[in-house]
Amino acid sequence: MHSFQTVAWSDAGVVLLDQRRLPLEEVYLTCRNLEEVAEAIRNLTVRGAPAIGVTAALGLALAATQYRGGEAAFAGYFERCCQTLAATRPTAVNLFWGIERMRRLLAQCEGSPRRAIAEGLVQEAQAIAAEDAELCRALGRHGAELLRDGDTVLTHCNAGALATAGYGTALGVIRAAAEQGKKIKVIADETRPVLQGARLTTWELQRDGIPVTLITDNMAGHCMARGLIQKIVVGADRIAANGDTANKIGTYAVAVLARHHALPFYVAAPLSTIDPATPSGRQIPIEERDPAEVKQIGAQPIARPETAVFNPAFDVTPAELISGIITEKGILKPPFPDSIRKVKDVR
Amino acid sequence: MHSFQTVAWSDAGVVLLDQRRLPLEEVYLTCRNLEEVAEAIRNLTVRGAPAIGVTAALGLALAATQYRGGEAAFAGYFERCCQTLAATRPTAVNLFWGIERMRRLLAQCEGSPRRAIAEGLVQEAQAIAAEDAELCRALGRHGAELLRDGDTVLTHCNAGALATAGYGTALGVIRAAAEQGKKIKVIADETRPVLQGARLTTWELQRDGIPVTLITDNMAGHCMARGLIQKIVVGADRIAANGDTANKIGTYAVAVLARHHALPFYVAAPLSTIDPATPSGRQIPIEERDPAEVKQIGAQPIARPETAVFNPAFDVTPAELISGIITEKGILKPPFPDSIRKVKDVR
Repeated sequence: MHSFQTVAWSDAGVVLLDQRRLPLEEVYLTCRNLEEVAEAIRNLTVRGAPAIGVTAALGLALAATQYRGGEAAFAGYFERCCQTLAATRPTAVNLFWGIERMRRLLAQCEGSPRRAIAEGLVQEAQAIAAEDAELCRALGRHGAELLRDGDTVLTHCNAGALATAGYGTALGVIRAAAEQGKKIKVIADETRPVLQGARLTTWELQRDGIPVTLITDNMAGHCMARGLIQKIVVGADRIAANGDTANKIGTYAVAVLARHHALPFYVAAPLSTIDPATPSGRQIPIEERDPAEVKQIGAQPIARPETAVFNPAFDVTPAELISGIITEKGILKPPFPDSIRKVKDVR
Repeated sequence: MHSFQTVAWSDAGVVLLDQRRLPLEEVYLTCRNLEEVAEAIRNLTVRGAPAIGVTAALGLALAATQYRGGEAAFAGYFERCCQTLAATRPTAVNLFWGIERMRRLLAQCEGSPRRAIAEGLVQEAQAIAAEDAELCRALGRHGAELLRDGDTVLTHCNAGALATAGYGTALGVIRAAAEQGKKIKVIADETRPVLQGARLTTWELQRDGIPVTLITDNMAGHCMARGLIQKIVVGADRIAANGDTANKIGTYAVAVLARHHALPFYVAAPLSTIDPATPSGRQIPIEERDPAEVKQIGAQPIARPETAVFNPAFDVTPAELISGIITEKGILKPPFPDSIRKVKDVR
């Protein structure tokens, strides 16, 4: 299985596999302070909703260990660190969830010596990472039940080991099915503008020996019409209380195409991606990124510099286009407002 | 208005604006013999169904003027030239239509001296080019009736002056509406893998001062959901007798998305793009091109070299997703088998 680590704790700082340089170079980058962690999230060194949640938690742990001020000022310092990380990217809720878990631990440690608090925060962040990898496996086992021997699965963007602390969500489902001995083939949308499908999903699956074919995003409809795809599985950046799901730009179009071809469209995400505080997709903030991501590919310009560009990084797939939400606690079925309320309350 | 020439006849050969180098460089390339014309069609120096029909006709004229053999062998030579050009690209029917018109002229010239025949063929090819530019204007005038002041129109690929002998089909409709004083904005899909939208459509519209915003292909659905698009107009490479339409890969997905959002989806094409000999989309051959087009962008690799790729250059939009076919003789309405039969018979 895969022999890389997306995000890890080390004595020197938070170690990230630099995803901007994949698939041609495999380079690890160590973030030595909170600002470097924040910049790595902003510039997509690390991406994927669960992975940035884990990275933020580790970043806060790092900041806590590096604090050299007085006891009284620590809480204010920590809160500023939380706000720095929260401002990096607006859409994926796991970022805020990871920060919130660290805030909660700090609240529990009130009155403890500063060094014990820092140790507690490091342990909590590492626990978040370990849990994430573990729950991806549980999620994968549940989702694998939906895949049949011989299925070809379309996926969009990268919801793999590179988007989590390990194993992946959408690709975790595919991995688990493959581990059960099912022959699964994958068609990967390249996922413009940042090409996470072309650069990351193909690389990850090739490492695991799972057959994958790369297409441009605009070929998905044609592949469905030709009967080349049986199921669609994607990840999520935020799931609202009613089941509306924000995910990488282009996911919505894939869901509309799936409905047109009567193909099941599944979202795979940990429960931490579900945000009961967001009633519906209309309230999910959609990040718009640098027009340069569209106008050039790497260093290569593909349009004139003066060209106007619209570059939303995410879109919202309404709940009615989603066949099921695969979580570590099982598969949520429509109506999602009910199934989501149930599973988030139980927890 | 635009001050470039997509394809032109000169004493030195067939002159093409090298579309592979747009939008950063504006370079003209002279094809000095038939083989160079064929290669220019294959390698996308010139592309767009009407433009390659015109280019093929000019290529045959060039071959005729360069013939140095005996009178008796000319017909065989000319037929071999036709076959060389017919083998360059399989999907766009205008290529075969252009070749066929030249064959017909040759048949009419039977018995004439070889030099008179060559002159006749040059005149015929130039007439095809002039007619193409003229009928684009007629087509544009008809189509402009469908656009309202303030509309934002989505287009896919490039069906502009660069895809014809001038003015364009889908972009001809937009140009004509703009000339009527309507304020039209355009959203251009970048159109991977060859990026005709990013490289050609934005460049062409910027030259004419028509506002255009570039998006990646997977953003079209999101733009429709946000109400940013009122109408869709695309070109065509081949329209079957029942109205099924082959066009650049991704067109089908746009048509499905348009239907989902109850937006009108128009195809703009000259009557020469309609092929009564092709009963339905199932019989249209779909060209598959070099995987390198997907795996690298220019010289820049975006996936590992061993990555498997599927690279169909076209897809088929079924007639039931098409609101109207805009031609030089007016707008064909569903049911297309009837409206097509009528207009092709009248002709």
